[in-house]
Amino acid sequence: MTTQQPVTARPAGRPRSEKAERAIIEATLDLIAEGMGVSELSIEAIASRAGVGKTTIYRRWSNKEDLVVDALATLKAPLPPLAGESVRDDLIALMDVMRRESGNSTRARCVMNVAMSEADRNPRLTERFFKRAIEPRRTAMRETIARGVATGELKSDLDVEMGMALLSGAMLWYGKWGPAGELPADLAERLVDQVLAGLAA
Amino acid sequence: MTTQQPVTARPAGRPRSEKAERAIIEATLDLIAEGMGVSELSIEAIASRAGVGKTTIYRRWSNKEDLVVDALATLKAPLPPLAGESVRDDLIALMDVMRRESGNSTRARCVMNVAMSEADRNPRLTERFFKRAIEPRRTAMRETIARGVATGELKSDLDVEMGMALLSGAMLWYGKWGPAGELPADLAERLVDQVLAGLAA
Repeated sequence: MTTQQPVTARPAGRPRSEKAERAIIEATLDLIAEGMGVSELSIEAIASRAGVGKTTIYRRWSNKEDLVVDALATLKAPLPPLAGESVRDDLIALMDVMRRESGNSTRARCVMNVAMSEADRNPRLTERFFKRAIEPRRTAMRETIARGVATGELKSDLDVEMGMALLSGAMLWYGKWGPAGELPADLAERLVDQVLAGLAA
Repeated sequence: MTTQQPVTARPAGRPRSEKAERAIIEATLDLIAEGMGVSELSIEAIASRAGVGKTTIYRRWSNKEDLVVDALATLKAPLPPLAGESVRDDLIALMDVMRRESGNSTRARCVMNVAMSEADRNPRLTERFFKRAIEPRRTAMRETIARGVATGELKSDLDVEMGMALLSGAMLWYGKWGPAGELPADLAERLVDQVLAGLAA
């Protein structure tokens, strides 16, 4: 059991409960990583793996779905602060969060794959995870691109969704097909500059 | 059971065996789509679902892995013919194959997700599927981009891998986050033109 993932901040002064919470989150991720589908996962199995009673889990999460969404969210990095000046710099900051996740452990990648592959069977869970962990990033990127169109840094007729597809898609591609392990530190910057400049001579 | 997917051509004059083969392929895909992991899949279960004897399967595939690789490959469209003149036109043709797959049935997408989510557990199968269905496309795209660099249509200092990431990644993004159902008919063309021109004003 590792505790590398950032866990949502809780009110201070409750160290014992925080420790249990972390153990519950890690147990949930471990079970998914070991091949237990989200559908098969039970509060019993999680409690047993975490070494806590079911009551300890129910005190914090009223159902399995809430717990799984929280557990998955710990695998995602928080939004970076954006300076709001150069659109190029803000795009690099946003892309770099995606790049750094490529260095996530095999366990984290496996969990995310399993959870996403069950999207058809757990649409509500997927939707809630999306709202919690994905949508804020997409909103930030959409707003940054729209700002670039407004300030004249980007083409005036740019389709904002297509801009998102080019930037996020490229990083998605590197995460899927690129070299194993963490992607090169300067990748976000090179990628943004290439997307801005285009491929044509 | 549907038979919409293209099945690899076999020597003519063996209609009965072709029909059995198609039933076996469809049974394999059905079982995966219904949530049976590739690891749990058995020749027994496939034979039973296809309504054939195990011998009929073993006559054609010596093991489950071969069968699953063949079954997954039927979900991928063949490489388009490339004119080899305008790099832009060839890139559009290559991207359009990816676009058309976005119109694949939910079943096809689900099967592919399940199979890929098990990559860690079945590395050999994933590698063989990759060689069979993915690598030829990537080679064609890599060669087309390299040709563009050589002819001067693309920037002389272009990183070919990054060009692939921008083009394929964007279509990957639309497949994942874009509108449900088949993507717009002109998307490949718009996307290639946007990648070539860049986003910067």
